[in-house]
Amino acid sequence: MRATLMYGAGDVRVEEVPDPILREPTDALVRVLASGICEGELPPYRFMPAADQGTRVGHEFIGVVTDIGTDVSRLRVGDLVVAPFAWGDDCEICRDGLPASCGRWGLWGQGGTDGGQGEAVRVPYAQGNLARLPVAVDSALLPSVLTLSDVLSTGHHCAVQARVGPHTSVAVIGDDAIGLLAVLTAKRRGAEQILVIGRNPERAGLARDFGATEVFIEPDVFDEPAGTADGELAGVERVRAATGGRGPHAVLETFGSLRTLETAFAMVRDGGVISRTASRYEMPIGRSMLLRNITLTGGAAPARAYADQLLPDILDGTIEPGRVFDHTISLTDVPDGYRAMATGEALKVFIRP
Amino acid sequence: MRATLMYGAGDVRVEEVPDPILREPTDALVRVLASGICEGELPPYRFMPAADQGTRVGHEFIGVVTDIGTDVSRLRVGDLVVAPFAWGDDCEICRDGLPASCGRWGLWGQGGTDGGQGEAVRVPYAQGNLARLPVAVDSALLPSVLTLSDVLSTGHHCAVQARVGPHTSVAVIGDDAIGLLAVLTAKRRGAEQILVIGRNPERAGLARDFGATEVFIEPDVFDEPAGTADGELAGVERVRAATGGRGPHAVLETFGSLRTLETAFAMVRDGGVISRTASRYEMPIGRSMLLRNITLTGGAAPARAYADQLLPDILDGTIEPGRVFDHTISLTDVPDGYRAMATGEALKVFIRP
Repeated sequence: MRATLMYGAGDVRVEEVPDPILREPTDALVRVLASGICEGELPPYRFMPAADQGTRVGHEFIGVVTDIGTDVSRLRVGDLVVAPFAWGDDCEICRDGLPASCGRWGLWGQGGTDGGQGEAVRVPYAQGNLARLPVAVDSALLPSVLTLSDVLSTGHHCAVQARVGPHTSVAVIGDDAIGLLAVLTAKRRGAEQILVIGRNPERAGLARDFGATEVFIEPDVFDEPAGTADGELAGVERVRAATGGRGPHAVLETFGSLRTLETAFAMVRDGGVISRTASRYEMPIGRSMLLRNITLTGGAAPARAYADQLLPDILDGTIEPGRVFDHTISLTDVPDGYRAMATGEALKVFIRP
Repeated sequence: MRATLMYGAGDVRVEEVPDPILREPTDALVRVLASGICEGELPPYRFMPAADQGTRVGHEFIGVVTDIGTDVSRLRVGDLVVAPFAWGDDCEICRDGLPASCGRWGLWGQGGTDGGQGEAVRVPYAQGNLARLPVAVDSALLPSVLTLSDVLSTGHHCAVQARVGPHTSVAVIGDDAIGLLAVLTAKRRGAEQILVIGRNPERAGLARDFGATEVFIEPDVFDEPAGTADGELAGVERVRAATGGRGPHAVLETFGSLRTLETAFAMVRDGGVISRTASRYEMPIGRSMLLRNITLTGGAAPARAYADQLLPDILDGTIEPGRVFDHTISLTDVPDGYRAMATGEALKVFIRP
C-alpha cells in the first residue's frame, strides 16, 4: 500500500510500504477513508533532523474496518470508525480519560502500527480505540467526524478543563484548527464572551461563525522562536479592555509557545483558569501565579470518550467542525499539503487516499 | 504601646512605638487580645538581611474595637473581631475572594498600619477587613477563632481550590499549622483518605486527630536549601502505594519549596490537582504536566469571607483548629517564641499581649 513518511524538515514522501496484517487478537485493520494533517505535525515538519529512515506520519483518520482479531467483539467488518490521535488500550486509566497516562499509549506509526496518512492502518486494542460512526462512506459529514480524532476533541477538552460554561468570558489564543474548535466548543458550552487572538485575518470569519464575539489579529503573539517578550505583550490590553479591565475568566491557550503562555498569564483574570492544549517550552511558575489565584490546567484529550459525547451534535448539524478543512487533496499530494499548512495557505488539509 | 519589630535574621525585638490613631474615616482601632506567630514569618526570621530600621511584624490577630472612623457603620466599639492575614478594602475584587489582587492589598505593618504582634492596630477599610466574632474576651475559643486570620483560612482555601470532596484521596505535604489545618479542612469536606507527609513525629497525633488516615515522616522532603533531589523523591512511593499505585487525587502542598513542589508532581495521580499555599521558588512547567492532565492551583485565601463560613463550625465545636497552638507566651517573650518555632520546638505560638 502507499503511506506517508517524513524524512526530515520539509521532506515528506509518499511511498510503497507493506500492507498491514493482523498481529494480535485485539487488532483490527482499517482501510482509510480520509485523514488529516494536524497543526501538531508542523513542528516536526519544520525542525526534524534529516534521517535515512522515514517516520510514518498522520494521526487523524477515519476508515472502514476490513478485518478483526478473534478478541474483537464490539466491532464488525464494514464498520465506519474514527481513531483517536494516539492509541491506548482499554484499561481503567484510559476509561478515566487519561490517554497519555496509559502504559501502552502509543503514537500512530510507532510500535508496529501505521500512520494515518496512508491507505490502511493496523489498529491495536481496536475496541478500546475505535469509535463507530453511523454515517455512510459518502456522507457529507466525513470532514466533521474526522475532527473527532484530534482537533475537535482537543479543543473540547481545553474548554472542559477550563470549566467554561454560561457566563464565562473566554479568550482563545490561536486561530489554527484547534483554536477555532476551542471557540466552537466554548460556544457549545454557553460561554458568554469569546475573544480570539489570532494571526490570520482570513480566519476571522470562521471564528465568528463558530461563536467568537471579537477577533484580534496579533501576529506578534505567535512569533517564533518564542521567548520573553520585551515590554508589553501584544493583545493583552485589547483583551483586558474587552472584559471590563479584569481579563477573561478562562484563557484557552492552543499554540504552546513560551510567549503565548506568558500572554495567557498576562491576560487572564485573577482567580481565572489557563487551559493548555500544547506546550513546546518550559516556563517558570512561581509566586505571582499563587498570589493571583490562577489555575493552570489542560492536557491530552480523551478523544475516544469524547467521540461518543460529541457525535450527536455533529449528526444533527448543531456543530459543523469539518469547516476547518479548507483544502482537499489526494494521498499523492500530501507533501504539498504539508507545505500549504506550514505557509498558512491552508488552514487544514483533508486527504482522500 | 509595645509592638514587635524584626531587624534581621534571628533579631526580633519588642519596643515602644507610637499608639495608633484614626487617620481615615474608614479606619478602626483594635486592641489586640491575641496574636500568633505564623510559619510564613519564619523565612524572614531565617534570612532577612540586618537593617537599622526594624519592620513591624505579626499578621494574625484578634482584638476588640476601641474606636471607629465616621464611615464605619457595620462595626461598633466593643466588637470582638478577627483580621485577615493581609488587608484589602471592600471592592469587587475583594468580594470575589481575591485579596492579593486588590489594588489596595497591603501587609500588616506596612502602609502606615501596625503589625499584629503588638498591643493595638490601626485597621484600614475596617468593615471590609474585620469579621465580628460572637465570643467573649475570655472565651476558650480564642485560639480557634484566631486561626481564621490565616492558617485555617489558608488550609481551607487549599482544599477548596483542589476541589476536595467525598471520595477524594488527599496527600498533604507539610505538618506545620497550615498543613495540619489542610488536613482538618480536607476531613471537613469529606475526603476519604488523607495522607500526611511530615517531618515531625510529635505532630502525627494531632494530624490523626484532625483526620489524617496515615502519617509518613519524611524529613528529607523538607530539606533546605531546596533543589532537584537526586534519584527518588522521598515519600513518593509510600504515598503511591497507599493509593493503590496511582497516587492521590489531590496534593495539598503547604511548604512551598522547589523540592516539595517536585514531590507533589511526582506523587499526584494523573488527572489530579496540586494546590499550593506557598511558593518560595520558581519551577519550570512543561510537557509532562500537560500529558498527565495535571491541574496546578492554589492561592492567597480570602480569609475575610472564609471567617464567616467557618465560624459556625468553631462555635459549635465541630472543628478545633486552635489545637495547633501548643505554646502561649506574653508579648515580652515574642523573640523567644520565634526561636521556638524556628527550631520546631513549638508548633505554633499564641501571644497574649
